[in-house]
Amino acid sequence: MALYGAIEAGGTKFVCAVGSGPADLRAQTRVPTTTPRDTLAHCLAFFRGQPEIEALGIGCFGPLELRRSARDYGHVTTTPKLGWSNADIVGPLAAALSVPIGFDTDVNAAVLGEARWGAARNLDTAIYLTIGTGIGGGALIGGQLPHGLVHPDLGHLLVPREPDDLGFGGACPFHGARCWEGLASGPALEQRWGRRAEALPADHPAWDLEARYIAAALTSLVLVLSPERIILGGGVMQVSALFPLIRKHLKRSLAGYVQASALDQGLDEYVVPPLLGTQSGIAGALALAERAALGV
Amino acid sequence: MALYGAIEAGGTKFVCAVGSGPADLRAQTRVPTTTPRDTLAHCLAFFRGQPEIEALGIGCFGPLELRRSARDYGHVTTTPKLGWSNADIVGPLAAALSVPIGFDTDVNAAVLGEARWGAARNLDTAIYLTIGTGIGGGALIGGQLPHGLVHPDLGHLLVPREPDDLGFGGACPFHGARCWEGLASGPALEQRWGRRAEALPADHPAWDLEARYIAAALTSLVLVLSPERIILGGGVMQVSALFPLIRKHLKRSLAGYVQASALDQGLDEYVVPPLLGTQSGIAGALALAERAALGV
Repeated sequence: MALYGAIEAGGTKFVCAVGSGPADLRAQTRVPTTTPRDTLAHCLAFFRGQPEIEALGIGCFGPLELRRSARDYGHVTTTPKLGWSNADIVGPLAAALSVPIGFDTDVNAAVLGEARWGAARNLDTAIYLTIGTGIGGGALIGGQLPHGLVHPDLGHLLVPREPDDLGFGGACPFHGARCWEGLASGPALEQRWGRRAEALPADHPAWDLEARYIAAALTSLVLVLSPERIILGGGVMQVSALFPLIRKHLKRSLAGYVQASALDQGLDEYVVPPLLGTQSGIAGALALAERAALGV
Repeated sequence: MALYGAIEAGGTKFVCAVGSGPADLRAQTRVPTTTPRDTLAHCLAFFRGQPEIEALGIGCFGPLELRRSARDYGHVTTTPKLGWSNADIVGPLAAALSVPIGFDTDVNAAVLGEARWGAARNLDTAIYLTIGTGIGGGALIGGQLPHGLVHPDLGHLLVPREPDDLGFGGACPFHGARCWEGLASGPALEQRWGRRAEALPADHPAWDLEARYIAAALTSLVLVLSPERIILGGGVMQVSALFPLIRKHLKRSLAGYVQASALDQGLDEYVVPPLLGTQSGIAGALALAERAALGV
Protein backbone atom coordinates (compact mmCIF):
# COMPACT_ATOMS: atom_id res chain seq x y z
CA MET A 1 0.00 0.00 0.00
CA ALA A 2 1.36 3.42 -1.00
CA LEU A 3 2.53 5.63 1.84
CA TYR A 4 1.97 9.37 1.73
CA GLY A 5 3.15 12.28 3.79
CA ALA A 6 0.76 14.88 5.17
CA ILE A 7 1.13 18.29 6.78
CA GLU A 8 -1.73 20.15 8.40
CA ALA A 9 -0.12 23.57 8.57
CA GLY A 10 -1.80 25.81 11.13
CA GLY A 11 -1.03 29.09 12.81
CA THR A 12 -0.04 27.46 16.12
CA LYS A 13 1.20 24.05 15.04
CA PHE A 14 2.11 21.96 12.01
CA VAL A 15 0.85 18.39 12.29
CA CYS A 16 2.94 15.98 10.20
CA ALA A 17 1.94 12.40 9.47
CA VAL A 18 2.77 9.42 7.31
CA GLY A 19 0.21 6.82 6.29
CA SER A 20 -2.12 5.52 3.64
CA GLY A 21 -5.29 7.00 5.14
CA PRO A 22 -6.71 8.30 8.43
CA ALA A 23 -7.23 4.73 9.73
CA ASP A 24 -3.62 3.87 8.89
CA LEU A 25 -1.45 6.65 10.30
CA ARG A 26 1.97 5.07 10.79
CA ALA A 27 3.57 8.07 12.50
CA GLN A 28 2.58 11.55 13.51
CA THR A 29 4.21 14.58 15.12
CA ARG A 30 3.39 18.12 16.09
CA VAL A 31 5.74 20.97 15.32
CA PRO A 32 5.09 24.39 16.92
CA THR A 33 4.63 27.16 14.35
CA THR A 34 7.63 29.44 14.92
CA THR A 35 9.50 30.87 11.92
CA PRO A 36 8.94 29.37 8.47
CA ARG A 37 12.59 28.19 8.30
CA ASP A 38 12.57 26.43 11.67
CA THR A 39 9.08 25.01 11.34
CA LEU A 40 9.73 23.52 7.91
CA ALA A 41 13.13 22.19 9.08
CA HIS A 42 11.41 20.31 11.91
CA CYS A 43 8.83 18.91 9.49
CA LEU A 44 11.62 17.75 7.17
CA ALA A 45 13.47 16.09 10.05
CA PHE A 46 10.31 14.13 10.81
CA PHE A 47 9.84 12.92 7.23
CA ARG A 48 13.52 11.98 6.91
CA GLY A 49 13.06 9.60 9.84
CA GLN A 50 10.13 7.84 8.14
CA PRO A 51 9.82 5.23 5.38
CA GLU A 52 9.85 6.67 1.88
CA ILE A 53 6.66 8.50 0.86
CA GLU A 54 5.27 8.65 -2.68
CA ALA A 55 3.93 12.18 -2.38
CA LEU A 56 3.31 14.90 0.18
CA GLY A 57 0.05 16.78 0.78
CA ILE A 58 -0.14 20.10 2.62
CA GLY A 59 -3.30 21.76 3.90
CA CYS A 60 -2.18 25.23 4.94
CA PHE A 61 -3.55 28.31 6.67
CA GLY A 62 -4.03 31.07 4.11
CA PRO A 63 -4.30 33.10 2.10
CA LEU A 64 -2.23 31.10 -0.37
CA GLU A 65 -0.97 31.44 -3.92
CA LEU A 66 -2.38 28.33 -5.61
CA ARG A 67 -1.95 29.23 -9.30
CA ARG A 68 0.81 26.93 -10.53
CA SER A 69 1.83 29.49 -13.14
CA ALA A 70 2.46 32.17 -10.49
CA ARG A 71 5.99 33.13 -9.52
CA ASP A 72 5.14 32.65 -5.86
CA TYR A 73 3.13 29.42 -6.21
CA GLY A 74 3.08 27.53 -2.94
CA HIS A 75 3.53 30.60 -0.74
CA VAL A 76 1.40 31.98 2.05
CA THR A 77 0.65 35.48 0.75
CA THR A 78 -0.52 38.34 2.98
CA THR A 79 -1.08 36.88 6.43
CA PRO A 80 -0.93 39.13 9.50
CA LYS A 81 0.98 36.27 11.19
CA LEU A 82 4.44 37.61 12.00
CA GLY A 83 7.18 36.25 9.77
CA TRP A 84 4.86 34.27 7.52
CA SER A 85 3.87 36.91 4.98
CA ASN A 86 5.04 35.65 1.58
CA ALA A 87 6.59 32.53 3.19
CA ASP A 88 7.44 29.78 0.70
CA ILE A 89 5.92 26.53 1.96
CA VAL A 90 6.10 24.23 -1.05
CA GLY A 91 9.55 25.26 -2.33
CA PRO A 92 11.76 24.08 0.55
CA LEU A 93 9.78 20.85 1.00
CA ALA A 94 9.83 20.03 -2.73
CA ALA A 95 13.57 20.71 -2.92
CA ALA A 96 14.35 18.48 0.06
CA LEU A 97 11.92 15.59 -0.48
CA SER A 98 11.80 15.31 -4.31
CA VAL A 99 8.25 13.95 -4.36
CA PRO A 100 5.07 15.34 -5.95
CA ILE A 101 3.40 17.86 -3.64
CA GLY A 102 -0.29 18.64 -3.33
CA PHE A 103 -0.95 22.04 -1.78
CA ASP A 104 -4.22 23.70 -0.86
CA THR A 105 -5.95 25.59 1.92
CA ASP A 106 -6.52 23.83 5.25
CA VAL A 107 -10.29 23.99 4.73
CA ASN A 108 -10.14 22.71 1.14
CA ALA A 109 -8.01 19.85 2.47
CA ALA A 110 -10.61 19.16 5.18
CA VAL A 111 -13.49 18.89 2.71
CA LEU A 112 -11.36 16.64 0.51
CA GLY A 113 -10.53 14.41 3.49
CA GLU A 114 -14.21 14.11 4.38
CA ALA A 115 -15.04 13.34 0.74
CA ARG A 116 -12.34 10.66 0.54
CA TRP A 117 -12.92 8.90 3.86
CA GLY A 118 -15.58 10.70 5.88
CA ALA A 119 -19.02 12.30 5.87
CA ALA A 120 -19.00 13.24 2.17
CA ARG A 121 -17.77 9.90 0.83
CA ASN A 122 -18.96 9.18 -2.73
CA LEU A 123 -20.07 12.79 -3.21
CA ASP A 124 -18.34 15.14 -5.59
CA THR A 125 -19.83 18.43 -4.38
CA ALA A 126 -19.66 19.22 -0.68
CA ILE A 127 -18.61 21.95 1.71
CA TYR A 128 -16.81 21.84 5.04
CA LEU A 129 -17.09 24.70 7.50
CA THR A 130 -15.28 25.18 10.75
CA ILE A 131 -16.90 27.56 13.23
CA GLY A 132 -14.67 28.49 16.12
CA THR A 133 -12.18 31.26 16.79
CA GLY A 134 -12.85 32.24 13.19
CA ILE A 135 -15.06 30.80 10.50
CA GLY A 136 -13.46 29.07 7.55
CA GLY A 137 -14.71 26.82 4.85
CA GLY A 138 -13.66 24.85 1.83
CA ALA A 139 -15.56 23.45 -1.11
CA LEU A 140 -15.26 20.45 -3.36
CA ILE A 141 -17.11 21.19 -6.58
CA GLY A 142 -17.59 18.51 -9.19
CA GLY A 143 -14.67 16.64 -7.64
CA GLN A 144 -12.37 19.67 -7.94
CA LEU A 145 -11.00 22.04 -5.34
CA PRO A 146 -11.82 25.43 -6.89
CA HIS A 147 -9.20 28.15 -7.03
CA GLY A 148 -10.03 30.91 -9.50
CA LEU A 149 -8.71 34.38 -8.71
CA VAL A 150 -7.42 33.37 -5.26
CA HIS A 151 -9.37 30.61 -3.53
CA PRO A 152 -12.77 30.44 -1.89
CA ASP A 153 -12.97 31.63 1.69
CA LEU A 154 -16.42 30.86 2.97
CA GLY A 155 -16.16 32.47 6.40
CA HIS A 156 -16.68 36.07 5.42
CA LEU A 157 -19.70 35.97 3.19
CA LEU A 158 -22.19 38.66 4.07
CA VAL A 159 -25.41 37.79 5.87
CA PRO A 160 -28.53 39.79 6.81
CA ARG A 161 -28.62 41.05 10.37
CA GLU A 162 -31.23 39.37 12.56
CA PRO A 163 -33.85 41.90 13.75
CA ASP A 164 -33.25 41.10 17.45
CA ASP A 165 -29.50 41.67 17.12
CA LEU A 166 -29.23 45.19 15.75
CA GLY A 167 -27.20 46.52 18.67
CA PHE A 168 -24.17 44.26 18.24
CA GLY A 169 -21.20 45.81 16.47
CA GLY A 170 -19.71 42.61 15.10
CA ALA A 171 -16.35 40.96 15.66
CA CYS A 172 -14.81 40.96 12.18
CA PRO A 173 -11.90 43.43 11.83
CA PHE A 174 -12.65 43.71 8.09
CA HIS A 175 -16.43 43.58 7.81
CA GLY A 176 -17.69 44.40 11.32
CA ALA A 177 -21.21 43.02 11.66
CA ARG A 178 -21.79 42.54 7.92
CA CYS A 179 -20.14 39.14 7.55
CA TRP A 180 -20.81 35.75 8.97
CA GLU A 181 -17.57 35.53 10.92
CA GLY A 182 -18.28 38.92 12.49
CA LEU A 183 -21.67 37.74 13.73
CA ALA A 184 -21.26 34.06 14.53
CA SER A 185 -17.65 33.16 15.39
CA GLY A 186 -16.65 32.18 18.92
CA PRO A 187 -15.32 35.71 19.66
CA ALA A 188 -18.59 37.19 18.32
CA LEU A 189 -20.55 35.01 20.76
CA GLU A 190 -18.26 36.09 23.59
CA GLN A 191 -18.45 39.79 22.73
CA ARG A 192 -22.23 39.73 22.36
CA TRP A 193 -23.07 37.76 25.50
CA GLY A 194 -20.17 38.71 27.78
CA ARG A 195 -18.98 35.16 28.38
CA ARG A 196 -17.21 32.44 26.48
CA ALA A 197 -19.29 30.19 24.23
CA GLU A 198 -18.54 27.16 26.42
CA ALA A 199 -20.08 29.01 29.39
CA LEU A 200 -23.42 29.63 27.68
CA PRO A 201 -26.01 27.01 28.79
CA ALA A 202 -27.68 24.89 26.09
CA ASP A 203 -31.01 26.70 26.55
CA HIS A 204 -29.50 30.20 26.28
CA PRO A 205 -31.06 32.36 23.51
CA ALA A 206 -27.54 32.77 22.14
CA TRP A 207 -27.86 29.41 20.40
CA ASP A 208 -31.03 30.14 18.51
CA LEU A 209 -29.51 33.40 17.23
CA GLU A 210 -26.28 31.59 16.38
CA ALA A 211 -28.24 28.95 14.46
CA ARG A 212 -30.09 31.64 12.50
CA TYR A 213 -26.82 33.25 11.38
CA ILE A 214 -25.33 29.89 10.46
CA ALA A 215 -28.53 29.03 8.58
CA ALA A 216 -28.39 32.35 6.70
CA ALA A 217 -24.86 31.65 5.52
CA LEU A 218 -25.79 28.09 4.58
CA THR A 219 -28.77 29.42 2.60
CA SER A 220 -26.43 31.47 0.42
CA LEU A 221 -23.98 28.57 0.13
CA VAL A 222 -26.75 26.18 -0.95
CA LEU A 223 -27.82 28.66 -3.63
CA VAL A 224 -24.31 29.45 -4.87
CA LEU A 225 -22.58 26.07 -4.65
CA SER A 226 -25.46 23.56 -4.50
CA PRO A 227 -23.50 21.15 -2.27
CA GLU A 228 -24.72 17.58 -1.86
CA ARG A 229 -23.78 17.71 1.82
CA ILE A 230 -22.70 20.35 4.36
CA ILE A 231 -20.23 19.41 7.07
CA LEU A 232 -20.00 21.65 10.14
CA GLY A 233 -17.05 21.35 12.51
CA GLY A 234 -15.06 23.54 14.87
CA GLY A 235 -15.31 24.48 18.52
CA VAL A 236 -18.68 26.24 18.43
CA MET A 237 -20.27 23.22 16.72
CA GLN A 238 -19.44 21.03 19.72
CA VAL A 239 -22.69 22.38 21.19
CA SER A 240 -24.79 19.50 19.86
CA ALA A 241 -28.09 21.35 20.29
CA LEU A 242 -27.00 23.56 17.39
CA PHE A 243 -27.52 20.99 14.65
CA PRO A 244 -31.32 20.65 14.95
CA LEU A 245 -31.68 24.43 15.29
CA ILE A 246 -29.56 25.05 12.20
CA ARG A 247 -31.54 22.53 10.15
CA LYS A 248 -34.84 24.11 11.22
CA HIS A 249 -33.71 27.63 10.37
CA LEU A 250 -32.08 26.56 7.09
CA LYS A 251 -35.34 25.06 5.90
CA ARG A 252 -37.21 28.20 6.95
CA SER A 253 -34.67 30.49 5.32
CA LEU A 254 -34.64 28.63 1.99
CA ALA A 255 -38.45 28.93 2.09
CA GLY A 256 -39.00 26.10 -0.37
CA TYR A 257 -37.18 27.91 -3.16
CA VAL A 258 -34.84 25.00 -3.93
CA GLN A 259 -36.75 21.76 -4.41
CA ALA A 260 -34.75 18.77 -3.24
CA SER A 261 -35.56 16.06 -0.72
CA ALA A 262 -32.14 16.63 0.89
CA LEU A 263 -33.37 20.08 1.93
CA ASP A 264 -36.62 18.76 3.34
CA GLN A 265 -37.04 15.29 4.89
CA GLY A 266 -33.35 14.56 4.23
CA LEU A 267 -31.97 17.50 6.25
CA ASP A 268 -30.64 15.30 9.07
CA GLU A 269 -28.26 13.69 6.59
CA TYR A 270 -27.59 16.96 4.74
CA VAL A 271 -26.16 19.13 7.54
CA VAL A 272 -23.83 16.90 9.52
CA PRO A 273 -20.72 16.91 11.73
CA PRO A 274 -17.41 15.70 10.27
CA LEU A 275 -17.12 11.92 10.38
CA LEU A 276 -13.35 12.18 10.85
CA GLY A 277 -13.71 14.48 13.85
CA THR A 278 -10.54 16.48 14.33
CA GLN A 279 -8.74 14.37 11.69
CA SER A 280 -10.45 15.90 8.64
CA GLY A 281 -7.47 18.15 8.06
CA ILE A 282 -4.68 15.59 8.26
CA ALA A 283 -6.79 13.11 6.26
CA GLY A 284 -7.31 15.82 3.66
CA ALA A 285 -3.57 16.42 3.44
CA LEU A 286 -3.13 12.68 2.78
CA ALA A 287 -5.80 12.91 0.09
CA LEU A 288 -3.95 15.88 -1.45
CA ALA A 289 -0.82 13.71 -1.53
CA GLU A 290 -2.75 10.88 -3.15
CA ARG A 291 -3.99 13.27 -5.85
CA ALA A 292 -0.51 14.67 -6.36
CA ALA A 293 0.86 11.12 -6.82
CA LEU A 294 -1.80 10.52 -9.47
CA GLY A 295 -0.94 13.82 -11.14
CA VAL A 296 -4.43 15.25 -10.49
CA MET B 1 -16.12 24.06 -39.89
CA ALA B 2 -18.46 22.06 -37.64
CA LEU B 3 -22.03 23.34 -37.41
CA TYR B 4 -23.91 23.19 -34.15
CA GLY B 5 -27.50 23.79 -33.14
CA ALA B 6 -28.42 26.04 -30.23
CA ILE B 7 -31.58 26.72 -28.26
CA GLU B 8 -31.91 29.53 -25.76
CA ALA B 9 -35.03 28.30 -24.00
CA GLY B 10 -36.79 31.10 -22.13
CA GLY B 11 -40.14 31.58 -20.49
CA THR B 12 -41.51 33.75 -23.29
CA LYS B 13 -39.56 32.54 -26.33
CA PHE B 14 -37.19 29.83 -27.50
CA VAL B 15 -34.43 31.21 -29.74
CA CYS B 16 -33.05 28.55 -32.10
CA ALA B 17 -29.90 28.97 -34.15
CA VAL B 18 -27.40 27.09 -36.27
CA GLY B 19 -23.79 28.13 -36.61
CA SER B 20 -20.21 27.60 -35.54
CA GLY B 21 -20.09 30.56 -33.14
CA PRO B 22 -21.80 33.87 -32.40
CA ALA B 23 -20.03 35.57 -35.32
CA ASP B 24 -21.15 32.82 -37.68
CA LEU B 25 -24.88 32.30 -37.08
CA ARG B 26 -26.17 30.77 -40.33
CA ALA B 27 -29.84 30.82 -39.36
CA GLN B 28 -31.93 31.85 -36.40
CA THR B 29 -35.60 31.79 -35.42
CA ARG B 30 -37.80 32.67 -32.46
CA VAL B 31 -40.50 30.32 -31.26
CA PRO B 32 -43.03 31.60 -28.72
CA THR B 33 -43.09 29.56 -25.50
CA THR B 34 -46.53 27.93 -25.50
CA THR B 35 -46.89 24.29 -24.46
CA PRO B 36 -43.79 22.06 -24.26
CA ARG B 37 -45.09 19.84 -27.09
CA ASP B 38 -45.83 22.70 -29.51
CA THR B 39 -42.75 24.72 -28.64
CA LEU B 40 -40.37 21.80 -29.11
CA ALA B 41 -42.17 20.78 -32.34
CA HIS B 42 -41.55 24.26 -33.77
CA CYS B 43 -37.89 24.09 -32.72
CA LEU B 44 -37.56 20.69 -34.42
CA ALA B 45 -39.18 21.99 -37.61
CA PHE B 46 -36.54 24.74 -37.70
CA PHE B 47 -33.60 22.35 -37.28
CA ARG B 48 -35.02 19.95 -39.91
CA GLY B 49 -34.87 22.77 -42.45
CA GLN B 50 -31.17 23.42 -41.73
CA PRO B 51 -27.91 21.74 -42.74
CA GLU B 52 -26.94 18.82 -40.54
CA ILE B 53 -25.65 19.75 -37.08
CA GLU B 54 -23.04 17.81 -35.11
CA ALA B 55 -24.56 18.48 -31.72
CA LEU B 56 -27.24 20.57 -30.03
CA GLY B 57 -26.81 22.82 -27.01
CA ILE B 58 -29.72 24.03 -24.87
CA GLY B 59 -29.56 26.77 -22.26
CA CYS B 60 -32.89 26.54 -20.47
CA PHE B 61 -34.90 28.41 -17.84
CA GLY B 62 -34.94 26.38 -14.64
CA PRO B 63 -34.92 24.75 -12.27
CA LEU B 64 -33.59 21.76 -14.19
CA GLU B 65 -32.63 18.18 -13.50
CA LEU B 66 -29.00 18.03 -14.65
CA ARG B 67 -27.81 14.79 -13.05
CA ARG B 68 -27.37 12.37 -15.94
CA SER B 69 -28.12 9.44 -13.67
CA ALA B 70 -31.55 10.85 -12.73
CA ARG B 71 -34.72 9.36 -14.16
CA ASP B 72 -35.88 12.80 -15.23
CA TYR B 73 -32.55 14.09 -16.57
CA GLY B 74 -33.13 16.90 -19.04
CA HIS B 75 -36.42 18.02 -17.56
CA VAL B 76 -37.55 21.36 -16.20
CA THR B 77 -38.54 20.43 -12.65
CA THR B 78 -40.81 22.56 -10.45
CA THR B 79 -41.45 25.77 -12.37
CA PRO B 80 -44.54 27.84 -11.62
CA LYS B 81 -44.82 28.30 -15.42
CA LEU B 82 -48.09 26.70 -16.47
CA GLY B 83 -47.68 23.41 -18.34
CA TRP B 84 -43.88 23.29 -17.94
CA SER B 85 -43.56 21.62 -14.55
CA ASN B 86 -41.64 18.37 -15.12
CA ALA B 87 -41.51 19.02 -18.90
CA ASP B 88 -38.99 16.85 -20.74
CA ILE B 89 -36.80 19.11 -22.87
CA VAL B 90 -33.87 16.91 -23.84
CA GLY B 91 -35.83 13.69 -24.47
CA PRO B 92 -37.94 14.72 -27.49
CA LEU B 93 -35.05 16.64 -29.10
CA ALA B 94 -32.60 13.77 -28.61
CA ALA B 95 -35.08 11.26 -30.03
CA ALA B 96 -35.77 13.37 -33.11
CA LEU B 97 -32.30 14.73 -33.91
CA SER B 98 -30.02 11.84 -32.89
CA VAL B 99 -27.09 14.10 -32.03
CA PRO B 100 -25.24 14.64 -28.74
CA ILE B 101 -27.05 17.20 -26.60
CA GLY B 102 -25.54 19.61 -24.09
CA PHE B 103 -28.05 20.87 -21.55
CA ASP B 104 -27.66 23.41 -18.78
CA THR B 105 -29.29 26.45 -17.22
CA ASP B 106 -29.67 29.59 -19.33
CA VAL B 107 -27.29 31.45 -17.02
CA ASN B 108 -24.68 28.70 -16.98
CA ALA B 109 -24.89 28.75 -20.79
CA ALA B 110 -24.40 32.52 -20.79
CA VAL B 111 -21.24 32.38 -18.68
CA LEU B 112 -19.93 29.59 -20.90
CA GLY B 113 -20.64 31.67 -24.02
CA GLU B 114 -18.79 34.65 -22.56
CA ALA B 115 -15.88 32.37 -21.59
CA ARG B 116 -15.73 30.86 -25.08
CA TRP B 117 -16.08 34.01 -27.18
CA GLY B 118 -16.72 37.02 -24.95
CA ALA B 119 -15.69 38.93 -21.87
CA ALA B 120 -14.29 35.93 -19.99
CA ARG B 121 -12.25 34.48 -22.85
CA ASN B 122 -9.21 32.48 -21.68
CA LEU B 123 -10.51 32.41 -18.10
CA ASP B 124 -11.69 29.23 -16.44
CA THR B 125 -13.46 30.73 -13.43
CA ALA B 126 -16.03 33.46 -14.05
CA ILE B 127 -19.58 34.39 -13.21
CA TYR B 128 -22.35 35.92 -15.30
CA LEU B 129 -25.25 37.72 -13.67
CA THR B 130 -28.35 39.11 -15.27
CA ILE B 131 -30.17 41.78 -13.29
CA GLY B 132 -33.60 42.60 -14.67
CA THR B 133 -37.12 41.29 -14.03
CA GLY B 134 -35.39 38.77 -11.81
CA ILE B 135 -31.77 38.17 -10.90
CA GLY B 136 -30.07 35.07 -12.20
CA GLY B 137 -26.51 33.97 -12.46
CA GLY B 138 -24.31 31.16 -13.64
CA ALA B 139 -20.76 30.16 -12.80
CA LEU B 140 -17.91 28.54 -14.62
CA ILE B 141 -15.54 27.06 -12.03
CA GLY B 142 -12.24 25.58 -13.08
CA GLY B 143 -13.64 25.22 -16.60
CA GLN B 144 -16.65 23.26 -15.37
CA LEU B 145 -20.31 24.22 -15.03
CA PRO B 146 -21.05 23.14 -11.46
CA HIS B 147 -24.16 21.13 -10.69
CA GLY B 148 -24.06 19.39 -7.32
CA LEU B 149 -27.36 18.84 -5.54
CA VAL B 150 -29.34 20.87 -8.10
CA HIS B 151 -27.44 23.70 -9.75
CA PRO B 152 -26.24 27.09 -8.57
CA ASP B 153 -28.77 29.88 -8.64
CA LEU B 154 -26.99 33.09 -7.78
CA GLY B 155 -29.96 35.46 -7.74
CA HIS B 156 -31.32 34.60 -4.31
CA LEU B 157 -28.29 34.73 -2.09
CA LEU B 158 -28.96 36.64 1.11
CA VAL B 159 -27.51 40.12 1.58
CA PRO B 160 -27.42 42.54 4.52
CA ARG B 161 -30.04 45.26 4.47
CA GLU B 162 -28.69 48.75 3.85
CA PRO B 163 -29.35 51.01 6.88
CA ASP B 164 -31.19 53.63 4.78
CA ASP B 165 -33.55 51.02 3.31
CA LEU B 166 -35.11 49.42 6.37
CA GLY B 167 -38.68 50.32 5.40
CA PHE B 168 -38.81 48.37 2.14
CA GLY B 169 -40.57 45.00 2.32
CA GLY B 170 -38.73 43.35 -0.56
CA ALA B 171 -39.98 41.92 -3.84
CA CYS B 172 -39.03 38.25 -3.59
CA PRO B 173 -42.02 35.94 -3.10
CA PHE B 174 -39.77 33.42 -1.32
CA HIS B 175 -37.34 35.53 0.70
CA GLY B 176 -38.98 38.97 0.94
CA ALA B 177 -36.27 41.52 1.63
CA ARG B 178 -33.65 38.99 2.74
CA CYS B 179 -32.33 38.06 -0.70
CA TRP B 180 -30.61 39.95 -3.44
CA GLU B 181 -33.42 39.53 -5.96
CA GLY B 182 -35.91 40.83 -3.40
CA LEU B 183 -33.88 43.99 -2.90
CA ALA B 184 -32.32 44.77 -6.27
CA SER B 185 -34.34 43.33 -9.18
CA GLY B 186 -36.21 45.61 -11.57
CA PRO B 187 -39.52 45.00 -9.75
CA ALA B 188 -37.80 45.77 -6.41
CA LEU B 189 -36.64 49.12 -7.83
CA GLU B 190 -40.14 49.84 -9.09
CA GLN B 191 -41.85 48.89 -5.82
CA ARG B 192 -39.39 50.90 -3.74
CA TRP B 193 -39.39 54.09 -5.79
CA GLY B 194 -42.87 53.99 -7.30
CA ARG B 195 -41.73 54.14 -10.90
CA ARG B 196 -40.11 51.87 -13.41
CA ALA B 197 -36.31 51.62 -13.36
CA GLU B 198 -36.08 53.21 -16.83
CA ALA B 199 -37.89 56.28 -15.46
CA LEU B 200 -35.39 56.90 -12.66
CA PRO B 201 -32.88 59.61 -13.66
CA ALA B 202 -29.17 58.74 -13.59
CA ASP B 203 -28.57 60.96 -10.52
CA HIS B 204 -31.46 59.44 -8.50
CA PRO B 205 -30.38 57.97 -5.12
CA ALA B 206 -31.94 54.71 -6.27
CA TRP B 207 -28.78 53.91 -8.20
CA ASP B 208 -26.35 54.27 -5.34
CA LEU B 209 -28.54 52.01 -3.19
CA GLU B 210 -28.87 49.56 -6.09
CA ALA B 211 -25.09 49.53 -6.50
CA ARG B 212 -24.60 48.84 -2.79
CA TYR B 213 -26.88 45.78 -2.94
CA ILE B 214 -25.21 44.51 -6.08
CA ALA B 215 -21.80 45.07 -4.46
CA ALA B 216 -22.91 43.16 -1.36
CA ALA B 217 -23.91 40.15 -3.43
CA LEU B 218 -20.69 40.37 -5.43
CA THR B 219 -18.70 40.49 -2.18
CA SER B 220 -20.14 37.14 -1.15
CA LEU B 221 -19.65 35.73 -4.64
CA VAL B 222 -15.99 36.83 -4.70
CA LEU B 223 -15.46 35.10 -1.34
CA VAL B 224 -17.31 31.91 -2.23
CA LEU B 225 -16.37 31.39 -5.88
CA SER B 226 -13.25 33.53 -6.35
CA PRO B 227 -14.11 34.35 -9.97
CA GLU B 228 -11.44 35.78 -12.26
CA ARG B 229 -14.06 38.09 -13.79
CA ILE B 230 -17.65 39.14 -13.09
CA ILE B 231 -19.97 39.87 -16.01
CA LEU B 232 -23.11 41.88 -15.31
CA GLY B 233 -25.92 41.97 -17.88
CA GLY B 234 -29.69 42.38 -17.97
CA GLY B 235 -32.09 45.30 -18.21
CA VAL B 236 -31.13 47.09 -14.99
CA MET B 237 -27.44 47.05 -15.98
CA GLN B 238 -28.21 49.12 -19.08
CA VAL B 239 -27.91 52.13 -16.73
CA SER B 240 -24.24 52.67 -17.45
CA ALA B 241 -23.67 54.82 -14.37
CA LEU B 242 -24.10 51.66 -12.31
CA PHE B 243 -20.75 50.09 -13.21
CA PRO B 244 -18.48 52.67 -11.53
CA LEU B 245 -20.76 52.76 -8.47
CA ILE B 246 -20.73 48.97 -8.16
CA ARG B 247 -16.93 48.85 -8.45
CA LYS B 248 -16.54 51.54 -5.77
CA HIS B 249 -18.89 49.80 -3.34
CA LEU B 250 -17.44 46.35 -4.04
CA LYS B 251 -13.99 47.57 -3.09
CA ARG B 252 -15.37 49.18 0.05
CA SER B 253 -17.39 46.12 0.99
CA LEU B 254 -14.48 43.67 0.54
CA ALA B 255 -12.51 46.04 2.79
CA GLY B 256 -9.12 44.75 1.64
CA TYR B 257 -9.82 41.27 2.94
CA VAL B 258 -8.98 39.56 -0.36
CA GLN B 259 -5.62 40.69 -1.72
CA ALA B 260 -5.59 40.71 -5.52
CA SER B 261 -4.83 43.47 -7.98
CA ALA B 262 -8.03 42.57 -9.87
CA LEU B 263 -9.96 43.78 -6.82
CA ASP B 264 -8.03 47.01 -6.56
CA GLN B 265 -6.51 48.83 -9.53
CA GLY B 266 -7.85 46.16 -11.87
CA LEU B 267 -11.52 46.59 -10.94
CA ASP B 268 -12.46 48.22 -14.26
CA GLU B 269 -11.54 44.98 -16.03
CA TYR B 270 -12.94 42.79 -13.25
CA VAL B 271 -16.59 43.87 -13.18
CA VAL B 272 -17.65 44.24 -16.79
CA PRO B 273 -20.65 44.09 -19.14
CA PRO B 274 -21.06 41.05 -21.42
CA LEU B 275 -18.99 41.36 -24.58
CA LEU B 276 -21.59 39.41 -26.55
CA GLY B 277 -24.40 41.75 -25.47
CA THR B 278 -27.73 39.95 -25.75
CA GLN B 279 -26.07 37.01 -27.55
CA SER B 280 -24.35 35.50 -24.48
CA GLY B 281 -27.18 32.99 -24.15
CA ILE B 282 -27.33 31.71 -27.72
CA ALA B 283 -23.51 31.70 -27.92
CA GLY B 284 -23.48 29.68 -24.71
CA ALA B 285 -25.90 27.17 -26.16
CA LEU B 286 -23.51 26.77 -29.13
CA ALA B 287 -20.65 26.27 -26.67
CA LEU B 288 -22.72 23.62 -24.87
CA ALA B 289 -23.19 21.86 -28.23
CA GLU B 290 -19.47 22.09 -28.91
CA ARG B 291 -18.74 20.48 -25.53
CA ALA B 292 -21.36 17.78 -26.15
CA ALA B 293 -19.74 16.97 -29.51
CA LEU B 294 -16.41 16.57 -27.73
CA GLY B 295 -18.04 14.38 -25.11
CA VAL B 296 -17.25 16.86 -22.30
